[in-house]
Amino acid sequence: MKQLQDRIMRDGQVLGNGILKVDSFVNHQVDPALMDACGREFANRFANVGATKILTAEISGIAPALTTGIHLNLPVVYARKSKPVTMPDQVYLTLAPSHTKGRMVELIVSPEYLANNEKVLIIDDFLASGQTILGLARLAEASGSKIVGIGALIEKIFEGGRAALASLNVQIESLACIASLDNNKITFVD
Amino acid sequence: MKQLQDRIMRDGQVLGNGILKVDSFVNHQVDPALMDACGREFANRFANVGATKILTAEISGIAPALTTGIHLNLPVVYARKSKPVTMPDQVYLTLAPSHTKGRMVELIVSPEYLANNEKVLIIDDFLASGQTILGLARLAEASGSKIVGIGALIEKIFEGGRAALASLNVQIESLACIASLDNNKITFVD
Repeated sequence: MKQLQDRIMRDGQVLGNGILKVDSFVNHQVDPALMDACGREFANRFANVGATKILTAEISGIAPALTTGIHLNLPVVYARKSKPVTMPDQVYLTLAPSHTKGRMVELIVSPEYLANNEKVLIIDDFLASGQTILGLARLAEASGSKIVGIGALIEKIFEGGRAALASLNVQIESLACIASLDNNKITFVD
Repeated sequence: MKQLQDRIMRDGQVLGNGILKVDSFVNHQVDPALMDACGREFANRFANVGATKILTAEISGIAPALTTGIHLNLPVVYARKSKPVTMPDQVYLTLAPSHTKGRMVELIVSPEYLANNEKVLIIDDFLASGQTILGLARLAEASGSKIVGIGALIEKIFEGGRAALASLNVQIESLACIASLDNNKITFVD
């Protein structure tokens, strides 16, 4: 998606160790018009997968998942990383490594909002190692739901996430696909 | 706002201790169409305050802040509760008590995205004691910005937040204003 790639080239910062900082338009400050355009693009690409629900992880997945939900007219569930007092005692919980926190984090979804036989579209900000998305897929499968698609704003193909997700056997879409961040230079695929 | 009040009456659950659970459409599962309508309503109510930026707190403020940002065409900054590796060492940080966590949490904003002389519209999911919003106001003031409005989806007037925010002397709007949760019954103002 050219609009997102152009923005990454203009405002993204390579911090080293494979970290791309996009805090000025995705991860701390959000550009709503860009995020709305990304949601519209995901809605187009996943128009025919039959999704009944969108699943993401707090925090930075919420914005693209919400705009995708607006354009597909589907409810959005964000997995919590700590259990709020409003959540029942019995939950779906899995662990996933956090790239930016350097430790395992919990991903928790209430059975109230992930019922049996949902068709789940996973949307997140980054597809890197794929471990967060695999965690979300485990939660969905534990509930008896089926994953029907995976979308990420930004894919870092050099971290191998697409291969890690291959066993899910679903359509995977990224709106900006980065081949390399070597030498502090952002290189997109094709 | 009738649409939000009706939804609260239908799907909100009173858990006791003044806690209103709206996890099925705001705090865990999000209804994107409702959230978009709420963002449009905030945009109408704050059309003339001259805001240049929207400020909220992760996690549950992100959805209404984002849809407000879409309709006002303004960037949204969400204060982080832990400092990611992408954030510079020098930040604006304050502490605020978390109602649902029962402890103090940090609210952190990078000076990169809250510059001097911004006019800041604060949007959050709840206005209860007002302490989170006061924390956001302190961050904005530390940056040399000015608060120009405060919007909350749901106000619990019996927690006194509006009085706590009076010294900011700005327009405060809530889309659903709850007078009482006594006897597990939701009673709206007027």
